[in-house]
Amino acid sequence: MQIYGDSNSGNCLKVKWVCDRLAKPYHWIEIDTQKGDSRTPEFLALNGAGQVPTVVLDDGRALAQSNAIIRYLAAGSDLMPVDPFDAAKMDEWLFWEQYSHEPYIATCRFQMVYLGKSVSDLDPDKVRRGYSALARMEHQLAATRFFIGDRVSLADVALLAYSRVAHQGGFHLDGYGSIRRWIADAEQALGVS
Amino acid sequence: MQIYGDSNSGNCLKVKWVCDRLAKPYHWIEIDTQKGDSRTPEFLALNGAGQVPTVVLDDGRALAQSNAIIRYLAAGSDLMPVDPFDAAKMDEWLFWEQYSHEPYIATCRFQMVYLGKSVSDLDPDKVRRGYSALARMEHQLAATRFFIGDRVSLADVALLAYSRVAHQGGFHLDGYGSIRRWIADAEQALGVS
Repeated sequence: MQIYGDSNSGNCLKVKWVCDRLAKPYHWIEIDTQKGDSRTPEFLALNGAGQVPTVVLDDGRALAQSNAIIRYLAAGSDLMPVDPFDAAKMDEWLFWEQYSHEPYIATCRFQMVYLGKSVSDLDPDKVRRGYSALARMEHQLAATRFFIGDRVSLADVALLAYSRVAHQGGFHLDGYGSIRRWIADAEQALGVS
Repeated sequence: MQIYGDSNSGNCLKVKWVCDRLAKPYHWIEIDTQKGDSRTPEFLALNGAGQVPTVVLDDGRALAQSNAIIRYLAAGSDLMPVDPFDAAKMDEWLFWEQYSHEPYIATCRFQMVYLGKSVSDLDPDKVRRGYSALARMEHQLAATRFFIGDRVSLADVALLAYSRVAHQGGFHLDGYGSIRRWIADAEQALGVS
């Protein structure tokens, strides 16, 4: 399997972490999205949306969208809850991550790290929504060790990706003790350093 | 099962359509998000994100996020591809819909229908990204009858919800013949009128 990914992208690291955790072999092809590597005709033929990560299976078929990829790769593994309702709650967090977390937490980080903006340049609405996402995570993680009870799952993979670097987007986790505890627990459980 | 939904929300209609198609009984509880029904303490206890749709199963457990809900409800049905890779491609479209389609197509509709904006008031970047999403759909639907080959699936449910009312957000489908053909096919296959 080939992973087309940008090492600085949390979405891409999700795929790497799952492969490493499940000992699935892969060949990583670095795509520098800032240099336009994901907009070449060759890349667009693999993924018409021009987004990383994109994986190409050994039979040549391509799959995109980080959370769809990790869901496919982790099928039958201990990262996927066996109980159908638990698996559905995991999916709830996966979709929530892409709709209500990544567009704020990851986007603010992108603007500061890659576009050189300062905290005061950020869209206040994005910052507010980012903190709303963190508050919801804190509420859950004050009640359970991981997002789905006591077992680490893909919900933790997906939410760890940008939460652990939220400070790079100007978000302070000082008042979010459960999130800080969970980041350490999830990094350890997933073997992420 | 109880569905807490807003009848004007495409995300909520996805759940209704799947239940109707699969003959799953439910009780619909109308939530008027414009009147704050999704921000009451009672509703926030069901879904801390304050979002519709939210379903409550007969045993009292709650599940949110439209695409997670329909994935749970349709397990084992003909709306879910049996082949693991086809199911993963369906997931790819489900995540893409929430990240690259709904925030533009549905948001522009919301601003025009509910906030009374005119087309010229819309954020040009949202309009541009909406048309990019439509172009990607058109490309796929020129090649296949539905998003996953010849069989209707949850990918069609998810993308039909706001595509069929895209014109209410100022999007013209005149140049998107394959999307118009697919809307008719998907509505028929799903029993949506």
